Amino acid sequence: MLATLIHAPRDIRVETVPDPVLSTGGDAIVKVVAACVCGSDLWPYRGVTPTHGAHRIGHEFVGVVEAVGDDVRIIEVGDFVIAPFYVCDNTCINCRNGVSTSCLHGGWWGGEDHLGGFADGGQGERVRVPLADGTLVPVRGEIRDDQVPGLLTLSDVMGTGHHAAVSAGVRPGDSVAVVGDGAVGLCAIIAARRLGATTIIAMSRHPERQELARVFGATHLVAERGDVGVTAVQELTHGIGADRVLECVGTKESMDQAIRSTRPGGMVGYVGAPNGGPELPVRPLFNRNVGVNGGIAPVRGYIEELLPDVLSGAIEPGRVFDLELPLGEAAEAYAAMDERRAIKVLLRP
Amino acid sequence: MLATLIHAPRDIRVETVPDPVLSTGGDAIVKVVAACVCGSDLWPYRGVTPTHGAHRIGHEFVGVVEAVGDDVRIIEVGDFVIAPFYVCDNTCINCRNGVSTSCLHGGWWGGEDHLGGFADGGQGERVRVPLADGTLVPVRGEIRDDQVPGLLTLSDVMGTGHHAAVSAGVRPGDSVAVVGDGAVGLCAIIAARRLGATTIIAMSRHPERQELARVFGATHLVAERGDVGVTAVQELTHGIGADRVLECVGTKESMDQAIRSTRPGGMVGYVGAPNGGPELPVRPLFNRNVGVNGGIAPVRGYIEELLPDVLSGAIEPGRVFDLELPLGEAAEAYAAMDERRAIKVLLRP
Repeated sequence: MLATLIHAPRDIRVETVPDPVLSTGGDAIVKVVAACVCGSDLWPYRGVTPTHGAHRIGHEFVGVVEAVGDDVRIIEVGDFVIAPFYVCDNTCINCRNGVSTSCLHGGWWGGEDHLGGFADGGQGERVRVPLADGTLVPVRGEIRDDQVPGLLTLSDVMGTGHHAAVSAGVRPGDSVAVVGDGAVGLCAIIAARRLGATTIIAMSRHPERQELARVFGATHLVAERGDVGVTAVQELTHGIGADRVLECVGTKESMDQAIRSTRPGGMVGYVGAPNGGPELPVRPLFNRNVGVNGGIAPVRGYIEELLPDVLSGAIEPGRVFDLELPLGEAAEAYAAMDERRAIKVLLRP
Repeated sequence: MLATLIHAPRDIRVETVPDPVLSTGGDAIVKVVAACVCGSDLWPYRGVTPTHGAHRIGHEFVGVVEAVGDDVRIIEVGDFVIAPFYVCDNTCINCRNGVSTSCLHGGWWGGEDHLGGFADGGQGERVRVPLADGTLVPVRGEIRDDQVPGLLTLSDVMGTGHHAAVSAGVRPGDSVAVVGDGAVGLCAIIAARRLGATTIIAMSRHPERQELARVFGATHLVAERGDVGVTAVQELTHGIGADRVLECVGTKESMDQAIRSTRPGGMVGYVGAPNGGPELPVRPLFNRNVGVNGGIAPVRGYIEELLPDVLSGAIEPGRVFDLELPLGEAAEAYAAMDERRAIKVLLRP
């Protein structure tokens, strides 16, 4: 089969690799219908994180089940399934607590010996899915092709934006500011509106992303950053800052922007993987009773909740995909996102 | 009148100072019934924070109103009142949001020009209280002398322990670990039990404080710290850590202990004024979805909620006072707390 490999920074290739086979009794083999490139895939692409030899890349996909192991009870051959960006059993105490990213038996796409060895992550034609009954969510009934992009967002960005809003404790009537206008930040706007926020401030300076932010529910746009951005948010929120701020970038600067844009007693929900900002400044948090909550988003647990709204069209997170390419053009997909020519790229095997 | 001054580290003196007078129309003059020494008063006492010249010290008291300004509407002469450790109007948007420590018009005991200048903080015979209607909570009806210590804790430590529990989101059935066995940590145990926690782990290695922790509701004691302490908490909590951890010290070490003792998806509620640990490590928080919430406790807003339970004896936070001295012996009060001969010292003018 074909799959995407990263050889070195800016060196993405689609190559022929062995087809996956059932390895443990709990596996499923999924034929990929759509995959995509994640903002975090750009870290090795840009050389921010090192690449030690060529290896497979990707962690978001939807597809159709072709085979299942003997121990699989829920997932069936022929199911259309959504895979989260990690593997989990969905039964352990951490999964039951809603933190399936800390599953006691789970792991990450790539290779984990206890999960039966290497498992591709979706930027290819087929995937072996360990712990299939826990990891995969079947979507039964007819699926229209135009629903695929929305369903694919449930494997990462829509659930991650939702996690920012849930972690921040967004409630009806809240004012919410969103730091970051990538796919996750845009999905966080959808999530904030869905949870009842009435003032939603998108911090964005890119016209095409501002437009999508408006479509998704942003009531105000703030293009400024730093002190001027903080002041602009305060002017829209009774002079005190937003009740909840959703940090969807992961840099020291974006976290600082988020903390300072939050009102006393408010909460930052953060989902941007920390990159270059290893510490949170405690005094600005303590003195103003601003909390910080979030982390690597346990999206598996959100799929069932968000799925009906995606299927009905009540929310349209699939609109974050502004470019669709065949799998063979994965290198161009990375380049388009790297150069910000695309918000998020969907790949079709 | 007599009041307590700090001249330099370990130099506490009770001296004659001018009686306070009404300065703004919103003031009250309160005759102090009882005051106390706070853990944070030990910072300048120990020289951790500098003392630039002799000045008054103290910020927790209860007393009886002797006079009120022309604009005071709620507080009446003769009222027994509880004062929080700060001044607030109790009407601004931050106060209404439950964050009266960020009151737009309030301030701190000591001197704030916009509040009418210097205001004593309670370790003396009388206090001028600015914004009296917002700051003070009257306790109407007969007050027995044995109720005074409990009422005095509402001016700081009981409300602060409660804030740790509220900030951590303690709910019925939760497991809670409390880091810190000072007066605030002990009150946090009371608060956790009051909010329905069923497993309450006191991290304490002082026998007399362990005993009080048990009386207040601790179900388990962990004397160890560091890795061993973390493991001990995990063994009591299904191997994953406590749902909620209440950090009541304020050092880098105690915050580290708290974060690592929290289960994935759990929350640290912190109220220990950060001292020597200016940063929170983001990766251990992000990777395990551990949140951090809290800050300088807005105790004014908790007094009405906690007061009935103190008056009825349902909770007994006054037991944190294990030494009572006349105001004239304030120097000994500081020494006893500094040397950990006393948990908390009550002063009677």
